[in-house]
Amino acid sequence: MECIVLDEKVHYDGSQISSLWAYNLKGVQYDSIVAFRGGCDVKIEHMIDLEDKRMGDSIYSTDMLHFLIEHFDSTDLKLVYARQRLFTSIVAESLSDTGIVTTRQGDDLFVNGKKLTISIASTSSVSQKIHFGINVYHDFYGNLNDIGIDENKAVSLLADIGKRYVAEIHDIEKDLRKSRPLDVI
Amino acid sequence: MECIVLDEKVHYDGSQISSLWAYNLKGVQYDSIVAFRGGCDVKIEHMIDLEDKRMGDSIYSTDMLHFLIEHFDSTDLKLVYARQRLFTSIVAESLSDTGIVTTRQGDDLFVNGKKLTISIASTSSVSQKIHFGINVYHDFYGNLNDIGIDENKAVSLLADIGKRYVAEIHDIEKDLRKSRPLDVI
Amino acid sequence: MECIVLDEKVHYDGSQISSLWAYNLKGVQYDSIVAFRGGCDVKIEHMIDLEDKRMGDSIYSTDMLHFLIEHFDSTDLKLVYARQRLFTSIVAESLSDTGIVTTRQGDDLFVNGKKLTISIASTSSVSQKIHFGINVYHDFYGNLNDIGIDENKAVSLLADIGKRYVAEIHDIEKDLRKSRPLDVI
Amino acid sequence: MECIVLDEKVHYDGSQISSLWAYNLKGVQYDSIVAFRGGCDVKIEHMIDLEDKRMGDSIYSTDMLHFLIEHFDSTDLKLVYARQRLFTSIVAESLSDTGIVTTRQGDDLFVNGKKLTISIASTSSVSQKIHFGINVYHDFYGNLNDIGIDENKAVSLLADIGKRYVAEIHDIEKDLRKSRPLDVI
Amino acid sequence: MECIVLDEKVHYDGSQISSLWAYNLKGVQYDSIVAFRGGCDVKIEHMIDLEDKRMGDSIYSTDMLHFLIEHFDSTDLKLVYARQRLFTSIVAESLSDTGIVTTRQGDDLFVNGKKLTISIASTSSVSQKIHFGINVYHDFYGNLNDIGIDENKAVSLLADIGKRYVAEIHDIEKDLRKSRPLDVI
Amino acid sequence: MECIVLDEKVHYDGSQISSLWAYNLKGVQYDSIVAFRGGCDVKIEHMIDLEDKRMGDSIYSTDMLHFLIEHFDSTDLKLVYARQRLFTSIVAESLSDTGIVTTRQGDDLFVNGKKLTISIASTSSVSQKIHFGINVYHDFYGNLNDIGIDENKAVSLLADIGKRYVAEIHDIEKDLRKSRPLDVI
Repeated sequence: MECIVLDEKVHYDGSQISSLWAYNLKGVQYDSIVAFRGGCDVKIEHMIDLEDKRMGDSIYSTDMLHFLIEHFDSTDLKLVYARQRLFTSIVAESLSDTGIVTTRQGDDLFVNGKKLTISIASTSSVSQKIHFGINVYHDFYGNLNDIGIDENKAVSLLADIGKRYVAEIHDIEKDLRKSRPLDVI
Repeated sequence: MECIVLDEKVHYDGSQISSLWAYNLKGVQYDSIVAFRGGCDVKIEHMIDLEDKRMGDSIYSTDMLHFLIEHFDSTDLKLVYARQRLFTSIVAESLSDTGIVTTRQGDDLFVNGKKLTISIASTSSVSQKIHFGINVYHDFYGNLNDIGIDENKAVSLLADIGKRYVAEIHDIEKDLRKSRPLDVI
Repeated sequence: MECIVLDEKVHYDGSQISSLWAYNLKGVQYDSIVAFRGGCDVKIEHMIDLEDKRMGDSIYSTDMLHFLIEHFDSTDLKLVYARQRLFTSIVAESLSDTGIVTTRQGDDLFVNGKKLTISIASTSSVSQKIHFGINVYHDFYGNLNDIGIDENKAVSLLADIGKRYVAEIHDIEKDLRKSRPLDVI
Repeated sequence: MECIVLDEKVHYDGSQISSLWAYNLKGVQYDSIVAFRGGCDVKIEHMIDLEDKRMGDSIYSTDMLHFLIEHFDSTDLKLVYARQRLFTSIVAESLSDTGIVTTRQGDDLFVNGKKLTISIASTSSVSQKIHFGINVYHDFYGNLNDIGIDENKAVSLLADIGKRYVAEIHDIEKDLRKSRPLDVI
Repeated sequence: MECIVLDEKVHYDGSQISSLWAYNLKGVQYDSIVAFRGGCDVKIEHMIDLEDKRMGDSIYSTDMLHFLIEHFDSTDLKLVYARQRLFTSIVAESLSDTGIVTTRQGDDLFVNGKKLTISIASTSSVSQKIHFGINVYHDFYGNLNDIGIDENKAVSLLADIGKRYVAEIHDIEKDLRKSRPLDVI
Repeated sequence: MECIVLDEKVHYDGSQISSLWAYNLKGVQYDSIVAFRGGCDVKIEHMIDLEDKRMGDSIYSTDMLHFLIEHFDSTDLKLVYARQRLFTSIVAESLSDTGIVTTRQGDDLFVNGKKLTISIASTSSVSQKIHFGINVYHDFYGNLNDIGIDENKAVSLLADIGKRYVAEIHDIEKDLRKSRPLDVI
C-alpha cells in the first residue's frame, strides 16, 4: 500500500469513489490512499449513502482535503467499515499532534461542536473504497481555517495523514503474521 | 453485541483468550465484550503472540483492567486486527475524556513515554477474539494510578470503554445497511 | 433481524428485490423480512431468474402474500439459497399448523398438485435477498382461497411466517455461539 | 455430493463428527452424507455442543439412525447451521411421507411432545460437518418404534433421507447458476 | 465442471465474458469451460482490462481458439487469477504435447518471441470468469498456423485443452478432501 | 512476498509445514517462500495427506530441494491448491529452462516416467502452506542427479524457482488491480 499526494487540485464530484479510479488516473496497481485538495459537490448519481439521497442532502464544500482509500484484498463490508472508523481515528490523531482537539462520532470528527468532516465507505465486486473529506474553509461547518490551521499546514496534512494510514496497515499486516490461532475451551 | 462487566476479580492467565470462554463462564450466546479487573500472568502455553514466546517475555502485572472481545461473525484475521486497532483508539478516547492524553502506536497506548497497555488478537475456526489490558498499578510500566486515576475511576472505565465499543459496532452495522455498492470506472 | 408487516397493499413488480429497498422504503437499518399483500407482475427488467427470462414467462398473480428477506451479513450465494430453502420449509410449517398440507420441491410449495408459491434468491455486492410469494387467489395455480384459508387468516400468515423466520435466524445465531470446532482424524 | 449407506452397524461415540472421518473410513473424496444404524454414547471429549458439556448431559441411545454430512466447499458457520436446519426439515418431510407428523424446533424434531432426534453442526479449518441422529428405540425419548415404524421401514429411511439431502444440494447448486445479481435501489 | 465444445463458429466481441453467458446460450447449470473457434474483436464497452481501454488497444484477430471458463463456487479475485495462470500452463502443456514449445509470462504464451495468446479474468457478484484466446492465423502476432499446426489439429485443441482443465479442477477437488489442517508452531 | 534461501541444510521431518514456522525460524513477517536443501523423512504425526497415513507410506529421501510457501492473505483451500498446481508448473518451467523436460500430473512432476517430486498443501485458521520437494539423489525415484543436473546447478534452482514464484504472485496482484467487474447477461 502506498500514499499518493496529488499536486494539482481535484474537484470531488463523487465519481472518484468508483473502483479503479486510481488506476485510471495514474495507473496505480497496488492498494492506495490518494490525497488531494479541492472543492466538493457530490452529484446525486454518485451518492453512495442512501440517507443523503433520501434527504436530498447536498454534500458541498468549496475547499477540502480529500482522501480516497482503495483496497483490493477483500470486498467485506464489515472490514471496510472498521477501516473507515480506524482512519477517522488516525485523522484525529494527526490533528491532535498539531494541537487540534476533535471529537469522533463513528466516521465523523467534530471541532467545537461543529462537524468538520464527511466520509463514506462501500464495496464493488472487485475492491473496497473509503472517501474522507476535511473542510479547509466553510461558512457553516467546522473547518481547518477557523481553528487556526493555515493553508500550508493544511496541505501538509495530506501527506501526514496518508503516511499514517499506510504505516498502520503495514503494521497490521506484520502483526497478523506472528499470532498463532486461538485455543478453544 | 453486549458488554458484561464482572463484579468479581479474575486473574488473567491467558486461558481467557480461548474461543467460547464467555459461553463457558456465563452462557453468553451473542458477540460480547467482557470487562473485569485482576492480575495478569500469561502462561507460556497460552501465549498467542509468538514474539513474546520467542523473547521469553513475561507478560505480568499485579493489577489490570481487562477486556475480552469475541465476535462470531467472521474469522478473518484482517478484520479482527482492524477491530483491535479501533478498540485501542476507543480506549484512548475514553481516557481522553477523563483528561488523560495518551499516544497510540498500533495496538499500544503510551502515557508519558511509558507503555500503558498490552493487547493481542487472533482467530480460531469458530470465532475471533481480542484481549486488551490496562495497568492499574505497575512498578515499571505506565499505569492509571501514576496518572491520577483513582481506583473508583479506574473501575468505572470497565463499563465506559465496554459501552463505547458496543456502540461503535452497532453504529457500523447500521451504517453498512444504507450504502449502495460502488460504481466502477 | 426484525419482521415488518406493511399495512398497505404493495404491487410487486420485481423492483422490490433490489438491495436496500427496505432502507429506501422505511429506513430499515437491520436485517429484515418485510411482509405485505398485493398483486404481482414482474417486469422483464427485474427478473432475476434467467430461466423465466429465457422462457418469456410471465410471473403474474392478482393477489399474493409477499415476503422480502434481506441479510447484510454475507453475500455468499450458497448461504442465501440454503436460507431460501429453509424459509420454504418454514412456510410449509406455518401452513401445516393451519391444517394445510403442502409438498415442498426445492423452493416451491405445491398443494393438491398445484404450484402455490414463487421464489427467487440472489446477491449484490452489499446484501443477499429472497422473494417469496404465496397466491391468495389465482385462476390457474394453487392458492390459499381454494384450500379454505379466508382473507383474515391469509393476512395473519404475514406476521406468523415473518416471526417464525426471525426466530429461526436468532436461534441459529445462538446455537453457533456454543459449538466448539471439529476435531480432525 | 453422494450418499453412502453403511451395511454394518456403527456405534456412534462422537469421534465420527471429526473432519475427514469419511475419507479415513472409506476413502471418500467428495462431499458426502454417510448414513448408518447403531447405538449412541458420546464421550465427553467428543462433545461439540458446550451446553451438553456444561450440563454434564449424557447423549445416549441404544439404537439410532445416524447421518454424518461433510462439506468441503465452505467453512462458514452460518452456512453449516442453515444446512443443518434444512436437513432437519428434510427428515420431517421424509417421515411425513411415511405418515408420521413431527414438529420441528430448530434442529430438533418432536413427536407426540417427545424429542425424537439429536443434532450438532460445526466446522474445522478444512470442512463443515453435521451429525443428526433419530432414535429407533428409546425408553424415555421419542423413537420410531413407538410411532409404528418397524425395523425394515426404519432402515429404509437411511437411504431415503440421504438421497433427499443429496438431491436438495444438487438442486441448490443448479438454481444458483441461473440467477443474475440483484439490482440496487 | 464440464467442457462444452461448440460446433459452430462464434465471433468473440467481449460480451461472452459476462456472467451467465453459458446459461443463456445453452442452459448450462454447472461450472463450465466453453470452447469454440471464431474471430475476435472486443468492443470497448466489453473490455475488462482497463489497461487495454486506456491504451485504446484493439484486441483483434480474424481467427482464434476461444475458451470461456465460469466458476460459481467463489467470487474471490485471487482465486480466479491463480486459476487463470494455471490454465495458461495447461495450454502450454497441451501445445508441448503436440511438439510446440512456448514461453509463459503470467497469462501470456509466446512462441518464437511472438505473443500467441490473449487472456483476461474477473468476477461479478455471482461468478468468476476467464477468457483465453489463441491465434489460429494472424499477420503480426504469433499463431498456430505459423508453427505448423494445421486446421484439424487446431480444432482438436479445443477439446484437448478443455478436458485437461476439467480434469485438473476435479483432481484439485479430490486432493483437498484428503488433507488435514496444518499444525501450528 | 519474499524468497528466502537458507544457506544451511535443514532436514525436513514435516514439522516445517506448520503455520508460522518461518516466523519462528527467522522472524519472517510477510508472505514467504523458504527454500533449502536437506534430507526428508516425514514423521507420521506430521503427515498432512491422509492417504500417506492410511497407506503407511514413508516419505523419504536422502537429499532434496525443499520449498515452503506460506500465505496469510486467505485460508481458502481452493486457493492454496490452485497455487500449489501453479507452483508445480513453475518448477517445470524452471527445469525446462535448464534443458530438462518433465511431465506434470496435478502436483507431481515426472521425468523419464519416474516421480521426481513430492508436494502437499493445506490451511490452518491463520495461514495456508505448500511444501514441495525435488529429489537431488534417489535410488528409486526420479532425481536431478540422474538427469544431469550437478550439485551447483541443483542449488541454484532454490533461488531461481523461489524468485519465479514471488514474481508470479506479484504479477497476479498487479493484474487484479486493473480489471473491472464482469457484466451480467
